[in-house]
Amino acid sequence: MPLKHPLNSSVIWFTGLSGAGKTTLATELKVKLEQLGLPIYLLDGDRLRAGINADLGFSHKDRSENIRRAAEVAKLFCEEGYCVLATFISPFESDRNLARQIIGFDRFKEVFIHCPLAVCEQRDVKGLYKKVRAGLITHFTGIDSPYEEPTSPDITIYSNEQSVEDAVNLILKKLL
Amino acid sequence: MPLKHPLNSSVIWFTGLSGAGKTTLATELKVKLEQLGLPIYLLDGDRLRAGINADLGFSHKDRSENIRRAAEVAKLFCEEGYCVLATFISPFESDRNLARQIIGFDRFKEVFIHCPLAVCEQRDVKGLYKKVRAGLITHFTGIDSPYEEPTSPDITIYSNEQSVEDAVNLILKKLL
Repeated sequence: MPLKHPLNSSVIWFTGLSGAGKTTLATELKVKLEQLGLPIYLLDGDRLRAGINADLGFSHKDRSENIRRAAEVAKLFCEEGYCVLATFISPFESDRNLARQIIGFDRFKEVFIHCPLAVCEQRDVKGLYKKVRAGLITHFTGIDSPYEEPTSPDITIYSNEQSVEDAVNLILKKLL
Repeated sequence: MPLKHPLNSSVIWFTGLSGAGKTTLATELKVKLEQLGLPIYLLDGDRLRAGINADLGFSHKDRSENIRRAAEVAKLFCEEGYCVLATFISPFESDRNLARQIIGFDRFKEVFIHCPLAVCEQRDVKGLYKKVRAGLITHFTGIDSPYEEPTSPDITIYSNEQSVEDAVNLILKKLL
């Protein structure tokens, strides 16, 4: 597919804690970008973990492999001309760097969704924090597994302070 | 994407020995199907082994994992409305059955590219058989690793007896 738009063949990588708002923002952004006629692919961490990454757990090694495979899948869609919106906690900088390397430095845009842990835990959309506090889940990012904040993201969103609409508009403004 | 054509959201899975002609046929078929306006994705075994499956070897276990991941990737493109042309030696019936199960029975069409080993070896497009005979490669399908022929493929192509054009026309006739 020939390039028609600067966002064709690109990957917008959303990183942040569980509950920070990665999927919410990516879903809204997808709607806006599709209105521009762009082919958009939403690559969701949970969906991959139910399929190609179903054999992986949450150890450091498995998290890395989770991100490596995600980046390879993103690359395949990217090479088909899609603008890929990838939503992965992706807590380790080394893994995000590997994703950038696999996908290509020019094609990879990192969006850090910043949100205080307490707010994520209060939202608890998937009920995961409750399970963590009940001791049913371990190796959970932000609780007993670290989240390394991006050191130089292309965009930072403060999802606790910005509305979804404002955040999406900011992303669009920065990317287009 | 709404269904527009019976081959939208389908996977045509080419199985057969190395050198049987899987990629040649799929590449030709891609051209023909794209002329019908269908979104086609060529999912090639070698390409995946250079990316998402780069961590896998050729043991029975790794071959199975290779096919499992390939089927999951095929499913992602399939769900985007693509007609996926997947070319994998996929020597074990259990793995092809798993692929069919992952992708969905209605969406999965198995095309067996039949070709005598001696002919594949004579063609030796990638120079692999030469390496096998020199002892540089082991676990090679047809030589020291088995190929289980499909018991009830949707289509069988005898690539030693049919021209590429005739084979592609037969596949089109059977599928459309």
